Amino acid sequence: MDASFWETRFAKRTERVKSSAIREILKLTQQPGVISLAGGLPAPELFPLEAAEQACSRLLREHGKEALQYSTTEGHHPLREWIAATLPKTNANEVLITSGSQQGLDLAAKLLVDPGDTVLVESPTYLGALQAFNPYEPRYVSVPVDESGMQVDRLEELLKQKPKFIYALPNFQNPSGSQLGLERRTTLVKLAAEYRVPILEDDAYHHLNFQEGIMPTLYELDKTLGSGNNVVYMSTFSKTLAPGLRVAWTVGPAEVIRKLVQLKQGADLHTATLNQMLAFELATTVFESQVARIRRTYRARRDVMQEALSQTMNGKARWNTPQGGMFFWLTLPAHLDASRLLEHAVRHKVAFVPGEPFHAGGGGKNTLRLSFSYPTPENIREGIARLSESLEEIVD
Amino acid sequence: MDASFWETRFAKRTERVKSSAIREILKLTQQPGVISLAGGLPAPELFPLEAAEQACSRLLREHGKEALQYSTTEGHHPLREWIAATLPKTNANEVLITSGSQQGLDLAAKLLVDPGDTVLVESPTYLGALQAFNPYEPRYVSVPVDESGMQVDRLEELLKQKPKFIYALPNFQNPSGSQLGLERRTTLVKLAAEYRVPILEDDAYHHLNFQEGIMPTLYELDKTLGSGNNVVYMSTFSKTLAPGLRVAWTVGPAEVIRKLVQLKQGADLHTATLNQMLAFELATTVFESQVARIRRTYRARRDVMQEALSQTMNGKARWNTPQGGMFFWLTLPAHLDASRLLEHAVRHKVAFVPGEPFHAGGGGKNTLRLSFSYPTPENIREGIARLSESLEEIVD
Repeated sequence: MDASFWETRFAKRTERVKSSAIREILKLTQQPGVISLAGGLPAPELFPLEAAEQACSRLLREHGKEALQYSTTEGHHPLREWIAATLPKTNANEVLITSGSQQGLDLAAKLLVDPGDTVLVESPTYLGALQAFNPYEPRYVSVPVDESGMQVDRLEELLKQKPKFIYALPNFQNPSGSQLGLERRTTLVKLAAEYRVPILEDDAYHHLNFQEGIMPTLYELDKTLGSGNNVVYMSTFSKTLAPGLRVAWTVGPAEVIRKLVQLKQGADLHTATLNQMLAFELATTVFESQVARIRRTYRARRDVMQEALSQTMNGKARWNTPQGGMFFWLTLPAHLDASRLLEHAVRHKVAFVPGEPFHAGGGGKNTLRLSFSYPTPENIREGIARLSESLEEIVD
Repeated sequence: MDASFWETRFAKRTERVKSSAIREILKLTQQPGVISLAGGLPAPELFPLEAAEQACSRLLREHGKEALQYSTTEGHHPLREWIAATLPKTNANEVLITSGSQQGLDLAAKLLVDPGDTVLVESPTYLGALQAFNPYEPRYVSVPVDESGMQVDRLEELLKQKPKFIYALPNFQNPSGSQLGLERRTTLVKLAAEYRVPILEDDAYHHLNFQEGIMPTLYELDKTLGSGNNVVYMSTFSKTLAPGLRVAWTVGPAEVIRKLVQLKQGADLHTATLNQMLAFELATTVFESQVARIRRTYRARRDVMQEALSQTMNGKARWNTPQGGMFFWLTLPAHLDASRLLEHAVRHKVAFVPGEPFHAGGGGKNTLRLSFSYPTPENIREGIARLSESLEEIVD
């Protein structure tokens, strides 16, 4: 049987699903000695290992038969209640536990997107969301992002095209690191309600703000200023407790959650029981201290990267200083290509992610994402120095 | 905003995704005093709790930063190697770790099914597979199952309709408990190769055989008698270690696995890292002893249910004696309705699952599934006695 036997049987939707060239380049970066500013990995030295070990032992000893058994698709009820309590006017039955936010994105698109439907995304936007949405064959319209997030003055003309939903990342957006301003939040929520276009709010980086206080979520603003049921909200423990647990949540009107539950039942029955119980234990014990440690550490690393960029890249690239999250976003002069820069960078043993794939409508060839959450301060300094040398080579 | 605001935005595919009436009835069965012969739950008293606790502690202590971090979509490499070694002529790069077999079913349909495509299923077949496939909008053709599994003499006329794939459950099928005979396996594999129709083999109950030795899988037979790349094989730790871990696998040609990896990346990034490492630890230590305990225990419970059925149901229903797995399948006289029986049974405080939803093409109203893996021998006897009383009521 020839090699293409299976390919001829793949569904049409898989044409939109491709392995990226970048992924191949980034495999090279796993070689020893390469400093990676590429992956969006949390700092593993901050994982709550002891607390997790103790909680895991206790759970298996005292509730092992429950922790290892099948459980409900909706999720572990105490965890759903804990999440509901962190949100305004929300009940546990409006909360679905998902296997990472990635699953929330997949299920939302499965619920809402018919082939050819329009989805409104930010530009740049989270690459993983495009990977989740693509198999459902949407077409995209994009709103540009600047350092205050989505440029909402460009929104109204696009809403007239009646997109199925707006995918928004208001806090420390992956990849740009930008935060949506309060006035823009209000405009976005009001316009979406007026045009009756739902918002899918992805708030994975909510707790990673470097200043005191956090702006209200779109979900919260919709409860007070909008229709009250126009936002489906998503967040995760991946940036605060541990990504390897794959525990996240989607919150929305009960009728939406009910339908998502049915889709999730077909997709993976339920999220691992032990992981949900463990996440609940950690959420109710070490969560606040974890968040404080992570914010402190990442803020310091942000400062180191900011300083290193200022010392080596001034005049060669533009960037904004992120007020939270894990990423700097660099814009090179328009004629430079970040993919070409990556080839040079890999030879200098430093890696980053080129920005183009984060643009649903193309463009952004001269942009790139740098992560400061995973590397040590020493590696950040050395990595930026190497990046600067690589840039010198392609400027010539 | 009216209640139907969201409903008008749901994608067309969701019309095929419904909550079942049975699920609602079965919620009643969670009341105290109800004996459930309904759910397909493993016996939790057989979970390897101590081994899991020790392995979990060791993993978090010695490999915690890896166990709680993001990992590759393909899965934990040592686990992929362990699985490959259990199968004939198989490499680790032909193995994908999934979040339960349920995810394997979802991804397979996402890969292969365009709306309107034909999928060939057994009748009855696993309900969860239909729930996974339905959002991709296939139409079904069915091959009846008898006590020796799929009636392969009915297969050839259906293969002429060029189905996209054959979904087969050769070992102790959920729900019927039947096992596909060796001669039928050979016929199935050869016919599928001849008509170039791939087989998706779901072997969740592989290790739960009550006799010595197990027949070769379709995957193995295809390596020797068929094309060698016509079968995608799935199995799971849910019936041998613990379902709450959500660790299973899909095995197939490298080009299929590569594409499934891309789809899984969009669906949930990867299966929980800790769970994969824990499953590997348990697989390489207590797996054999677990399987032996489970087979012994379930065989004894099978015998108890067989005896109880013989004492109370002879002449009132037909059933075959399963040689493995977790289920008896009862056929009532044609004019009786198992849903009506369930209403009476719930009043008698015993629950089961009516057989109709397991039939993709309808029918089977007079069939039902009884699980013997979860209830104790005492509860099996009492449950069957109550079921028999309930049946008396609807026979009148």
